[in-house]
Amino acid sequence: MNAVVISDGRLSWQPRPDPVPGPHDLLVRVQAAGINGADLMQRAGHYPPPAGTPADQPGLECSGVVEVVGDRVRSLRPGDRVMALMAGGAQAELAAVHESHAMPVPDAMSPVEAGAFPEAFCTAHDALFTQGGLAMGDRVLVTGAAGGVGVAAVQLAVAAGATVVASARSRDRHAALAGLGATPATPDEVRARGPYDVVLELVGAPSLATAIEALAPWGRVVVIGTGAGSRLDLDLGLLMRSRATLRASTLRNRSLEDKAAVVRRVEHHVLPLVARGAVRVLVEDAFAFSQAQAAYERFAAGAKLGKLVLTAV
Amino acid sequence: MNAVVISDGRLSWQPRPDPVPGPHDLLVRVQAAGINGADLMQRAGHYPPPAGTPADQPGLECSGVVEVVGDRVRSLRPGDRVMALMAGGAQAELAAVHESHAMPVPDAMSPVEAGAFPEAFCTAHDALFTQGGLAMGDRVLVTGAAGGVGVAAVQLAVAAGATVVASARSRDRHAALAGLGATPATPDEVRARGPYDVVLELVGAPSLATAIEALAPWGRVVVIGTGAGSRLDLDLGLLMRSRATLRASTLRNRSLEDKAAVVRRVEHHVLPLVARGAVRVLVEDAFAFSQAQAAYERFAAGAKLGKLVLTAV
Repeated sequence: MNAVVISDGRLSWQPRPDPVPGPHDLLVRVQAAGINGADLMQRAGHYPPPAGTPADQPGLECSGVVEVVGDRVRSLRPGDRVMALMAGGAQAELAAVHESHAMPVPDAMSPVEAGAFPEAFCTAHDALFTQGGLAMGDRVLVTGAAGGVGVAAVQLAVAAGATVVASARSRDRHAALAGLGATPATPDEVRARGPYDVVLELVGAPSLATAIEALAPWGRVVVIGTGAGSRLDLDLGLLMRSRATLRASTLRNRSLEDKAAVVRRVEHHVLPLVARGAVRVLVEDAFAFSQAQAAYERFAAGAKLGKLVLTAV
Repeated sequence: MNAVVISDGRLSWQPRPDPVPGPHDLLVRVQAAGINGADLMQRAGHYPPPAGTPADQPGLECSGVVEVVGDRVRSLRPGDRVMALMAGGAQAELAAVHESHAMPVPDAMSPVEAGAFPEAFCTAHDALFTQGGLAMGDRVLVTGAAGGVGVAAVQLAVAAGATVVASARSRDRHAALAGLGATPATPDEVRARGPYDVVLELVGAPSLATAIEALAPWGRVVVIGTGAGSRLDLDLGLLMRSRATLRASTLRNRSLEDKAAVVRRVEHHVLPLVARGAVRVLVEDAFAFSQAQAAYERFAAGAKLGKLVLTAV
């Protein structure tokens, strides 16, 4: 097969050995694979994948059709349309996916949308609900809201009955965020739009410092992205006075079982909303796998709404 | 003051001593007070109120304006518009309300709507969320969905991102239930519309027997109403196979603190949705307090959508 391969910080489309599915794996003929911030970090050498995953093959999510199933696979069969979380290697013609990390693709979802769904929606759902305890009526702040995880989080929070402030630097993205049901804000406007019961921090320390000052009593902050800086000058007295909770996590390096549990929660809680059109995957642009270098440059340039996706066609 | 008084199973509007507010109470000039099933049971002698509440003065909820506050009251002051849960005596010109059982009335809500809000929405919210663990994406069944608690529950479940089947005997109510975002069903259609993650049972045993056969794995059933019968022939094997939870409760006889906690949850989770129009109080008809007998007969006749309310004007 061919795969997107990292070499000296550049991407190319090259022959690689076919992945060999284990007894619990699906061999998937990949139709599309989203690009995530972690792929760019991996390209730069900053985000080595977990053991067992090739360091030079990026890609944390894919959609496609099951071609072969391992001996122990029970939930899916050849010909099924699936989308899946992966620890790497998703941007390739074939991918070996653990059965428990795959979801069926709703009829309403195209292969390109499905390839951009798992990482953003699993990350956003886990952060807002499992970690942040988001409930109906909560006031939620999503920073860096125009990105893939951001637009997923905004839609999920709105769908769950929250009041959502979506922060994005560029006002060009504000109309689209309002269209998702959020109140858009620039980073400078975040504090005045508070207080917030839940903050999903996707930008980093400078943004977080402001958000913490705008927390409601018992507020919960979940930090998922620190691209703009990871060192925070934190006033513990401020957290104590607002009785706040501050959490931080990534999805990729969790255990197989934990990620499987996240995938199951998304399948149960989010796919019904996708099926009836209440939540959708926003794709800014799609590129052929052979154009991965250009696609990553587009990702690095920012100023997009939702996801960039690589496709097999 | 005058109050609605029960005498020999009939209602009249008579002079009674003014209630005397304690240190934590508000004396409220009542504008409106909803009628609930429990009032009719109390009229029939089947539902004696908790100790300290006059047995012949019905009414579990009211809206009005605070006239006097007790020494220890801190959260509200004279002139504030409030709505409150009560253990009885709400259908009167004046009511003594515990501060912790009162909520501010959103600007968007009329006095009549506010008088019909607390009991139905507190009951529905507590049952669906605190007891039933309702979450986004769940498939929910509300039986007896056209009544006051039913239409509250349907709206709350829809607002929280659930897929809702609303069961009502009369097809005359089905278009209105569909308008609230639910799939309407007759009791005969309930089983085919399943399975259900959460069932809010407002009718009683015959209805519940069907619902239990249509539970999803890990399904939760919360029984709030048993007007159609309270003896259930339950197949424990059925519950075991679906790993189901069955709960039953009433709101009225819980502790002061527990009810205060319910009221706080509704204030936090539901009032923001009322304020922006996502959830509303459905009032079928309003009657003057002096017409209480006619209003209760109208309640007993059924075939209504939402609440009946008594008003001071």
